[in-house]
Amino acid sequence: MKKNKRDYYLSNIPLEKALSLIENSFKDFFGNEEVEKVKVIDSYNRIVAKSVIAKISSPHYNSSAVDGIAVKSIKTITANERNPIKLLKNEDYIIVDTGDSITEPFNSVIMIEDIVEVDENTVEIRSASVPWQNIRPVGEDIVKSEMIIPSNHKVKPFDIGAMLAGGVIEIECYKVPSVGIIPTGTEIIEPTSTPKTDQIIETNSRMFENLVREYGGNPKRYKPVIDDYELIKDAILKANKENDIVVINAGSSAGTEDYTSQIIEDLGELIFHGVAIKPGKPAMVGKINNKPIVGVPGFPVSAYVVFDIFVKNIIDKMLQNNEKRSTVKAILSKKIFSSLKHDEYIRIKLGKVDNKLIATPLKRGAGVTMSLVKADGMFIIPKSKEVVEAGEKVDIRLFRDISDIENTIVSIGSHDILLDIVSDILAKKNSLVSLSSAHVGSLGGIMALRKGESHIATSHLLDFNTGIYNESYISKFLKNKKIYLIKAIKREQGLFVLKGNKDKITCVKDIIEKKLLFVNRQNGSGTRVLLDYILKKEKLNKNDIIGYDREMNTHMTVATAVLSGSAKVGMGIKSVANIMNLDFIPIASEDYDFIVSDDFYNSNNYKVFWNVISSDDFKEKLEKLGGYSLGEFRVKCIEVGEK
Amino acid sequence: MKKNKRDYYLSNIPLEKALSLIENSFKDFFGNEEVEKVKVIDSYNRIVAKSVIAKISSPHYNSSAVDGIAVKSIKTITANERNPIKLLKNEDYIIVDTGDSITEPFNSVIMIEDIVEVDENTVEIRSASVPWQNIRPVGEDIVKSEMIIPSNHKVKPFDIGAMLAGGVIEIECYKVPSVGIIPTGTEIIEPTSTPKTDQIIETNSRMFENLVREYGGNPKRYKPVIDDYELIKDAILKANKENDIVVINAGSSAGTEDYTSQIIEDLGELIFHGVAIKPGKPAMVGKINNKPIVGVPGFPVSAYVVFDIFVKNIIDKMLQNNEKRSTVKAILSKKIFSSLKHDEYIRIKLGKVDNKLIATPLKRGAGVTMSLVKADGMFIIPKSKEVVEAGEKVDIRLFRDISDIENTIVSIGSHDILLDIVSDILAKKNSLVSLSSAHVGSLGGIMALRKGESHIATSHLLDFNTGIYNESYISKFLKNKKIYLIKAIKREQGLFVLKGNKDKITCVKDIIEKKLLFVNRQNGSGTRVLLDYILKKEKLNKNDIIGYDREMNTHMTVATAVLSGSAKVGMGIKSVANIMNLDFIPIASEDYDFIVSDDFYNSNNYKVFWNVISSDDFKEKLEKLGGYSLGEFRVKCIEVGEK
Repeated sequence: MKKNKRDYYLSNIPLEKALSLIENSFKDFFGNEEVEKVKVIDSYNRIVAKSVIAKISSPHYNSSAVDGIAVKSIKTITANERNPIKLLKNEDYIIVDTGDSITEPFNSVIMIEDIVEVDENTVEIRSASVPWQNIRPVGEDIVKSEMIIPSNHKVKPFDIGAMLAGGVIEIECYKVPSVGIIPTGTEIIEPTSTPKTDQIIETNSRMFENLVREYGGNPKRYKPVIDDYELIKDAILKANKENDIVVINAGSSAGTEDYTSQIIEDLGELIFHGVAIKPGKPAMVGKINNKPIVGVPGFPVSAYVVFDIFVKNIIDKMLQNNEKRSTVKAILSKKIFSSLKHDEYIRIKLGKVDNKLIATPLKRGAGVTMSLVKADGMFIIPKSKEVVEAGEKVDIRLFRDISDIENTIVSIGSHDILLDIVSDILAKKNSLVSLSSAHVGSLGGIMALRKGESHIATSHLLDFNTGIYNESYISKFLKNKKIYLIKAIKREQGLFVLKGNKDKITCVKDIIEKKLLFVNRQNGSGTRVLLDYILKKEKLNKNDIIGYDREMNTHMTVATAVLSGSAKVGMGIKSVANIMNLDFIPIASEDYDFIVSDDFYNSNNYKVFWNVISSDDFKEKLEKLGGYSLGEFRVKCIEVGEK
Repeated sequence: MKKNKRDYYLSNIPLEKALSLIENSFKDFFGNEEVEKVKVIDSYNRIVAKSVIAKISSPHYNSSAVDGIAVKSIKTITANERNPIKLLKNEDYIIVDTGDSITEPFNSVIMIEDIVEVDENTVEIRSASVPWQNIRPVGEDIVKSEMIIPSNHKVKPFDIGAMLAGGVIEIECYKVPSVGIIPTGTEIIEPTSTPKTDQIIETNSRMFENLVREYGGNPKRYKPVIDDYELIKDAILKANKENDIVVINAGSSAGTEDYTSQIIEDLGELIFHGVAIKPGKPAMVGKINNKPIVGVPGFPVSAYVVFDIFVKNIIDKMLQNNEKRSTVKAILSKKIFSSLKHDEYIRIKLGKVDNKLIATPLKRGAGVTMSLVKADGMFIIPKSKEVVEAGEKVDIRLFRDISDIENTIVSIGSHDILLDIVSDILAKKNSLVSLSSAHVGSLGGIMALRKGESHIATSHLLDFNTGIYNESYISKFLKNKKIYLIKAIKREQGLFVLKGNKDKITCVKDIIEKKLLFVNRQNGSGTRVLLDYILKKEKLNKNDIIGYDREMNTHMTVATAVLSGSAKVGMGIKSVANIMNLDFIPIASEDYDFIVSDDFYNSNNYKVFWNVISSDDFKEKLEKLGGYSLGEFRVKCIEVGEK
């Protein structure tokens, strides 16, 4: 029953439909969730299957709340400053420590600090001690039969203390769901630093293992299986037997060698294949021996989205877990278009600017793992919406704690690895403040500052007429805003070529004359502006450059294109050429400035930022990279009114 | 060098001073924190000691982003709907799957959905394919040399995926600090359901173990040690050798058998003993063999506060952990007095009422474990403040997720175990809504509703003149508020006596005539009002009841007082007598009503609440308890204007 044809057309059911299919198909499975006895001392983070009732009161006897003496209240009633009363040991009082039982005839406790020792057997007191003073009555903390924690509660450290104090030693918890994870693919290999072409490092199962732990399950990863019907079938059967849930990674889209859906149909029932979510469309869920199997697509972001919806949903149902994900309201910083065909999951960077929480979408590609690493949260655009306007208040599901996010400096603009250095120095200083940088080019940065989406714009925009960096752009685009321009860093710009410079390039003109394949930067980036300036000055025509239209978003990606041979030459900064081991032909020295908002300039976080960029540590690290010169810092306040 | 005298006077240094003493005393210790190599696949939740840099790009070759055919772009340029172009296999195109490498002469990929198969070796296309279409260039996701995560970052599941994709297999992480925990005390015993008088169940070390896990450390609990100088000394030396940090529990206050401070002085250096915090004053920190030892007081809440300040502080410093605790602003619901002598840690219950987050302080005793279990967060009153006014906006450090808290129904008023049943049914239904109830008596509940601190007041206040429950109190105290009164539950009230009723009590009058020790409820509770009503009706004098002045806050604590023999008789509801195995002498049947605010009445959470109290499940559970009768539900809207 092999199937080796392309199964092009998946049905895409709405997400709600998919979830209700799971709910209905696994009624028995969820209903029969096993419960096991767990020792209270081992119950941290376990979910209790039924409410926990105190077996004894705490304290379970009337006990002294302090160190002192237990007395008969009646004997102390007339005591005051002018009329101290002497009490006799063992007759009128006994010495008690905190926690000691108090029994008749004693019915009150005086603190050690309030008595005066007269001799070994006599003390003097100067105030009356009322009945039950400083005595913790039976059940003051916990009363026998009281509910300590309700059903379906996740056990916290102090819950353990309270249960033990209530005489509870063992409780009933839901069994921890076990999740078998099977990576598949002929091309995948185990982690390495030296993969060959066409080899793909298997990373998803390692993410899944730890997501399972986060959800409260127990992961079991199996060895990768090549794309072979029989081998995959055997692996699924084994994992199905050994676990509650099976996850099979990749093999769920409609590629040449995707057997998964066929195997599920052959072994059991395919409940659905294809869900109207993006990324994650090829998700599938099936049932084998009455247990769920989830087929997860291969691209890391699709994999995360599908796993976090379906595998979490199944584990939550098994554990009766009703914890809600943290969400927060934020203002969307740019208009997003989405399709009416699917729910779309957008990774979001958050930042508090002008006291508003701003949500900026990150790259949307399904393969962009780094967008998960950098994201603060997820914004879900429902199927029913085609466009979400900039300025709309939207719900963001948080990946990080909101107080961390509020201490994040948001820098949007031109990319430079010196921003990574700032970020790392901040982290090393153990400061609460962190830097998040988005790379959209210099002009994009100024626009983000204008819309109040960032604290800092990094920019190196050359004015063709004056030869001065940034100021004319500020005048033009930041009208009616008070901003501060921080100048100090000069960078060397030039051409990237492979080590050896075998085409013997010396200037921009050579690119045209030698007909070399070029890779460009995007419109609005300072490097693009610089190139255009040089072309104009040297009276060259951009249309004569082969590859002028192929745009990359960072210096790093330009360098990588040259390194991988997909271009012969590109333009960028010297530090990147050094890191990437490329030859560098210097073209110009430029100002790389920080433009900061007035609001941010007056904040504490700015002081922390300033301390970093003016530190010796920062200076040394830049020098080590090469291609920078750090002069005196100059801060210029600029305020341009409407003309 | 034994020390067996009472060391009454501790110096209480301010918390900031204590923390800076730790910082200074352990400079070497923190500076030498060991770093170890950790496999990326095992690095979940570990803290990286230095930033992680990508060793390779991802993708590391130009790869197809889709399933389809790789083509030479130039061959496709003229294709459109009216002018389809035929392409020849292996000559003009090759079949590629997602992830396959694309090399020259091919430079563009067409999706499988956009081609028409003509025969085995020919396809037809109807639109042009531009260069680099559907190709993921080298480094699209991660560029070699790029920083994946900065120093001191805690590894998340997708960070693991990103590091592996960047060719990183091993990283440097801070060593997990090991914490040795030594419980001490001659009176303490291991967990049991049947402790004897003067035996204290050891619960703190079990809470500590799991707090250490939460902080990112590795706990090692030692067997409890009795109060003996030599034995404690040996245990400390062993734990000091085997761990980074030692915690010794109890033995830090000034009781008869407190050796700890002496032992620390004998083995090393006592850095401080006594900190101006409440609870937690007797905290101590010392240094033995250049490693920290923390002395933590015995009462559970003091223990938590001290542990969470000092042990967390030391672990955070070792791990360079700069995660901030989640805090939230909330409005304090009642005035709190605190002393200028210390910082005070107040457990707080939060609830969203009328769209405001309301913080209600819980019991303040150091022994009240349940106040930790029930708390949503902690409010710290600094030393410098003597009073915090009701209505003040304060910072609350969260114990739970804020979205959970927002779905909490806040019920304040008269206590009844039926509230525990409601809470448990809510949890079992896997509803996101939960019930939090605070027991302050009926009148206290009405007052809380008036101040907008709660959604529901539970009340059974009898009008002396009309014999009608609650309505006259609503008219008097809830003026100018629209509220709903939900009537359905009748409860039996009566007297609690030990099984057998050996004093042969039949009515309230008997308490006076037989001179039996009574235990009362607090002023403003419905039960107290009922008692006073009976006394008035029967023309009895409250001053003739011995124990009329001893007040308990719940039915449960009254029952416990009778059970433990500290009173002969008390008054309360039948269900509690049943649970506590007491005899019950019926006195009256009363209305136990829910009074709900207009705002809550119109919310979704009210519907969930209503579904629970009108369910068969709820009815059956009440019948099983006994002492209730459930009639038809009647909801009455009451709106009283100012006269």
